[in-house]
Amino acid sequence: MVAIAHLCWMTINTNSIRALTFRVGINTLLDEKITMIIILKPEATEADANEILEKIASLGLKPLYMPGIERTVLGALGDERILRQLHLDSYPMVDEVKPVLSPYKLVSRELQAHDSIVPIADTNIGGGKFTVIAGPCSVESEQQLLGISEMIKAHGIALLRGGAFKPRTSPYSFQGLGEAGLKLLKMAKKQYGLGIVSEIIDPNDADLMYDYIDCYQIGARNMQNFRLLEAVGKTDKPVLLKRGMSATLEELLLAAEYIINSGNSQVILCERGIRTFETATRNTLDLNAVAYLKEKSHLPVFVDPSHGTGVKSLINPLSRAAVAVGADGIIVETHLNPKEALSDGHQALTADDFAQLMADIKPFVAAAGKTLC
Amino acid sequence: MVAIAHLCWMTINTNSIRALTFRVGINTLLDEKITMIIILKPEATEADANEILEKIASLGLKPLYMPGIERTVLGALGDERILRQLHLDSYPMVDEVKPVLSPYKLVSRELQAHDSIVPIADTNIGGGKFTVIAGPCSVESEQQLLGISEMIKAHGIALLRGGAFKPRTSPYSFQGLGEAGLKLLKMAKKQYGLGIVSEIIDPNDADLMYDYIDCYQIGARNMQNFRLLEAVGKTDKPVLLKRGMSATLEELLLAAEYIINSGNSQVILCERGIRTFETATRNTLDLNAVAYLKEKSHLPVFVDPSHGTGVKSLINPLSRAAVAVGADGIIVETHLNPKEALSDGHQALTADDFAQLMADIKPFVAAAGKTLC
Amino acid sequence: MVAIAHLCWMTINTNSIRALTFRVGINTLLDEKITMIIILKPEATEADANEILEKIASLGLKPLYMPGIERTVLGALGDERILRQLHLDSYPMVDEVKPVLSPYKLVSRELQAHDSIVPIADTNIGGGKFTVIAGPCSVESEQQLLGISEMIKAHGIALLRGGAFKPRTSPYSFQGLGEAGLKLLKMAKKQYGLGIVSEIIDPNDADLMYDYIDCYQIGARNMQNFRLLEAVGKTDKPVLLKRGMSATLEELLLAAEYIINSGNSQVILCERGIRTFETATRNTLDLNAVAYLKEKSHLPVFVDPSHGTGVKSLINPLSRAAVAVGADGIIVETHLNPKEALSDGHQALTADDFAQLMADIKPFVAAAGKTLC
Amino acid sequence: MVAIAHLCWMTINTNSIRALTFRVGINTLLDEKITMIIILKPEATEADANEILEKIASLGLKPLYMPGIERTVLGALGDERILRQLHLDSYPMVDEVKPVLSPYKLVSRELQAHDSIVPIADTNIGGGKFTVIAGPCSVESEQQLLGISEMIKAHGIALLRGGAFKPRTSPYSFQGLGEAGLKLLKMAKKQYGLGIVSEIIDPNDADLMYDYIDCYQIGARNMQNFRLLEAVGKTDKPVLLKRGMSATLEELLLAAEYIINSGNSQVILCERGIRTFETATRNTLDLNAVAYLKEKSHLPVFVDPSHGTGVKSLINPLSRAAVAVGADGIIVETHLNPKEALSDGHQALTADDFAQLMADIKPFVAAAGKTLC
Repeated sequence: MVAIAHLCWMTINTNSIRALTFRVGINTLLDEKITMIIILKPEATEADANEILEKIASLGLKPLYMPGIERTVLGALGDERILRQLHLDSYPMVDEVKPVLSPYKLVSRELQAHDSIVPIADTNIGGGKFTVIAGPCSVESEQQLLGISEMIKAHGIALLRGGAFKPRTSPYSFQGLGEAGLKLLKMAKKQYGLGIVSEIIDPNDADLMYDYIDCYQIGARNMQNFRLLEAVGKTDKPVLLKRGMSATLEELLLAAEYIINSGNSQVILCERGIRTFETATRNTLDLNAVAYLKEKSHLPVFVDPSHGTGVKSLINPLSRAAVAVGADGIIVETHLNPKEALSDGHQALTADDFAQLMADIKPFVAAAGKTLC
Repeated sequence: MVAIAHLCWMTINTNSIRALTFRVGINTLLDEKITMIIILKPEATEADANEILEKIASLGLKPLYMPGIERTVLGALGDERILRQLHLDSYPMVDEVKPVLSPYKLVSRELQAHDSIVPIADTNIGGGKFTVIAGPCSVESEQQLLGISEMIKAHGIALLRGGAFKPRTSPYSFQGLGEAGLKLLKMAKKQYGLGIVSEIIDPNDADLMYDYIDCYQIGARNMQNFRLLEAVGKTDKPVLLKRGMSATLEELLLAAEYIINSGNSQVILCERGIRTFETATRNTLDLNAVAYLKEKSHLPVFVDPSHGTGVKSLINPLSRAAVAVGADGIIVETHLNPKEALSDGHQALTADDFAQLMADIKPFVAAAGKTLC
Repeated sequence: MVAIAHLCWMTINTNSIRALTFRVGINTLLDEKITMIIILKPEATEADANEILEKIASLGLKPLYMPGIERTVLGALGDERILRQLHLDSYPMVDEVKPVLSPYKLVSRELQAHDSIVPIADTNIGGGKFTVIAGPCSVESEQQLLGISEMIKAHGIALLRGGAFKPRTSPYSFQGLGEAGLKLLKMAKKQYGLGIVSEIIDPNDADLMYDYIDCYQIGARNMQNFRLLEAVGKTDKPVLLKRGMSATLEELLLAAEYIINSGNSQVILCERGIRTFETATRNTLDLNAVAYLKEKSHLPVFVDPSHGTGVKSLINPLSRAAVAVGADGIIVETHLNPKEALSDGHQALTADDFAQLMADIKPFVAAAGKTLC
Repeated sequence: MVAIAHLCWMTINTNSIRALTFRVGINTLLDEKITMIIILKPEATEADANEILEKIASLGLKPLYMPGIERTVLGALGDERILRQLHLDSYPMVDEVKPVLSPYKLVSRELQAHDSIVPIADTNIGGGKFTVIAGPCSVESEQQLLGISEMIKAHGIALLRGGAFKPRTSPYSFQGLGEAGLKLLKMAKKQYGLGIVSEIIDPNDADLMYDYIDCYQIGARNMQNFRLLEAVGKTDKPVLLKRGMSATLEELLLAAEYIINSGNSQVILCERGIRTFETATRNTLDLNAVAYLKEKSHLPVFVDPSHGTGVKSLINPLSRAAVAVGADGIIVETHLNPKEALSDGHQALTADDFAQLMADIKPFVAAAGKTLC
């Protein structure tokens, strides 16, 4: 293949070789995918381009040469795994390397065109249903958790959220009840038949939690805790994966790719607000993300309007918007007595608030042609 | 008033004076609004606090003294206009100044509890209606504009958008047709009975545009072009005010306050996406903002899903979300032949796209209990 | 040229035509610059690619066809001004359009390799000098301005900053003295021989200000007020152009391009902090920007540590960093009595602070091999 | 204490009780720290305020009542740990809760005024020294690591960085050599006497790594992996803690607080660039942060110009700026052959680049009055 690169350069001066060169070139073009476009700096010489073309060729990939007056552009074609070993951005004369294919595969609609349905306990997430997961930020006590469970059950809610292990910004804040909290969650499950969603913050806890919960939640701060992604990826329980507070959508999809690549394809993506300059709300809920993720990925997409706004009065309108934009469900924080909540009380819905929320989203779920469950 | 501050300090040592001091203090507290909380640095001395209290008192305001073990907190009460002259954050021992009242007044729900309705031509914006403003990014030709006008008219659209003066990032991009574009807009108005919304980018153009258009649009880049705000504020035409790409909601409300303070209360706020780290979409459409603005202000709130996403396939879901979150309408870019568009063609809806959009939002407008017009 | 595009497609089935096609193709490649890479969506058909290739060819540009297994990539070569009329991102099957050349020209080091030197009054900005521009945020009174002028003059400062027209977030804040402020600036100039830098906020003021000042300042909020850029671009006075609070470096360079394209090449770029999620400082001073701008552009680059931090105690260390990173100068706010300042008093340096600043930067200016003036 | 709150309200109508009330009040004010300011919504009634005041009092805290015409402000004084249990932001009539004291303690200059010096192997970090830590992004092979070690050793560098466990965005990217990489690091330590800094990504690895390394590095993605913070906090090795890519400075300081609170006070903070809208550089290096952290905390502060810029040509100027702004050192990526690097080759300095860097920062280290080591 080194010969090709060399020939490419010779074509500059020798008309007779041109046709040959590009006869080879066109085979390349037609038989292989292009995966990288490499743009050289204006001052790059022929020798610089040649060095890179030879490197590409040396790995058995197909080089492509596209010279221009101001800039030269190169292409590399072939197996993506080999292309990744090229590290062409390390060459001093390379200005930019642009991969043409998306970096994620398993989560992509290109791999699977139809929507994935992910079951949590007895509830199927996705596929024409709009699901509400509700519960307290933290599990605090039996009385608290059973009270909330009863309340949400009365609204037909099938899935209870509640944190036993809490990632808190300050070491002095309430850190969760730990296994005692998990036991309370199991009690709520038994008593009210609710499926349990709870956050995992340490790979070591995957086994412990397995018997207590129906769905692992990965929080925003741990979206790129890759060991944690692999740990839940090795289980057979569904995972609700929240977007990191400054994670791009590509990074979120790659985090999901980690889980699926570890063996567990039951992933639900969750938009929970991103960090921006705006301070009027706790986060900026990015509903563009929901529509984008539904387009690019076959995985179900949830919205967390509690963290996404951080303002109780905004949860209701943003939940309606989540329905309308095409989300498969919402996860909201509720508390029978927010004033006594040990965390996030300001954004917790009371029983009355929750009843109002359920009433308000109903017509929008119908408008979306979905069923509420 | 200096006496009070002095007395405050004396109370530290003299029990007998305390009651007197605070008898005065309590009158202060009960009869006036608190508008500023001033937190001193840990190393601030009594003399530092005293200097500030005297300054507060010297302007006829009421000082409030709240010492603590680690920090001292001061308060200042009285007329906000005088308070603004204090500039207490310039004192080296002041750590933070926190105004308690919102900085905007005229746009606030505290001033006017009910929704404002702003008429553009024959269409009332707000008050139970959901309005779609449509048209091209730029006015390009008679054929282009009349074609689009006819198309949107067929869907019952009453308001046409179209730029004659275009603010463009590069000096080499198409800058708009200028007055020729305004004339075409007037032609479309006459022929199809459409109200006209068009962007103003120079205070000098306010008079020229006045006879051609029914609503001035202030673009994101000019949200804090205060001379421009004042110029449209001196007219009697409605103003569609777009949020700056990194403007906080408070800054947007203060920009609206500029217009109303100049004499024109017909302002429509418009969320059009903010600039964040995310690159998958052109901007991040902030629907939290819509719910927040509806809560804090009596002004109508619009959404621009075209710029808010920058991705054609996302306009439809985000328009549905705009309805559901409580917006009073959307403004979208349409073009009969986006491939020939001189600007923003990638986000322009074709006739078919537009028909689909109108069909798709209908059930959500109904779910919101509004009428589409 | 349409023929070429057609032939390209025929090569898929007909080996004998391939060589011919690419013989033409290679001429294209060698004689013209590539300016656009067009990546099609995975589902794009041959007909989609052909349509775009014909469009490219129809404008007299050279099309380039690079098919692959998963994606097809196209190129377009030729005159950039024509390429800009293509609007290929409007085609539904186009996934992304990537221009290979930088969008700015006149400000670029590719146009002029050596540093530009921009004189303000008798001071040359750039070229081995480090210049400090100092003065109050707002001109407030004769006493205030002359006092500050005398103070900075004593430190060898040659350029006085001071705002007569103030862009303020709230309509209720102090808006500047207007022409009376300009007259005071001229008085300071006459009395102390200082060159004057003052902000312009309205294109209409360009003539009025011309006789009073030596350098127009464009503030962050007006960086994309294109009429204002053109107005100062039509004068022969230097312009200090501040980066918008969420402007990319490319947008800043394009704003400078507007000014130079209007006829005035005396532009000084100024980094003044960008808006991020961080709230501990008023803005995030982006010193990456300084090094990047010095690399990409021949224009002098200033730093505004007063607005860039918004915290008085941080101005000194960040000024030292500005020297070290390669800036050509700083512009700082000073006030003899910050407690009485009508704006930005919290970040104004006193006479003592300023003396300390000048002493502190001196060894770093020497380390940078520059002279302080 | 409930009585007091009640009395406060009675003062509204009963002059005679006022003095008494506030006589009690003033004791409160003088003997306790104020830790919270609670701003009520405009529509809050006396009953709402009273409920909160009673709640405050019920926990043994001191309530403070500051009514106004438009808004009522409350205060709560007392032990911070109890105040944290109040969760006053859950009350529907509470608009905002503002803590007056900083949330971090152990890292604060208020606790310890002088600079902490943290030793890594034989090198003291902080205290008048400027330290360069250098090495490859990933440990790749014996030849690679020993070559780099020899090169940096020749420049007097005492600390080698190198990743054995790599957190990578894509599951398909090189994930590090694991323990084999640690063994190579130990070999480099033995052969060249270098102290070893290496990243930990899993709490389980703390013991394994302990014998191989001299300093744990916590990467940006794990800054809020609290279990990981606690794991290194239970060891007696120093920790280089990198700021998360969208972490506020307060969050960074609280992350350090986690480590110290777990028993390990040897923490070095590291600014490595934050995520903003700017795409010209990989991250935005926030040097404001360095000056701010040095002011608020006694811990040493490092800068990572490699990740902070992501652009090789910007590493040199930003390293100079890091010296000038007051950092205690830099950590940079080097590679003898960046083109072959398995990760981050585009930002790795070659031997020549590194020699240039060391030469360039020297005069700035001297200007800062520090010694380079």
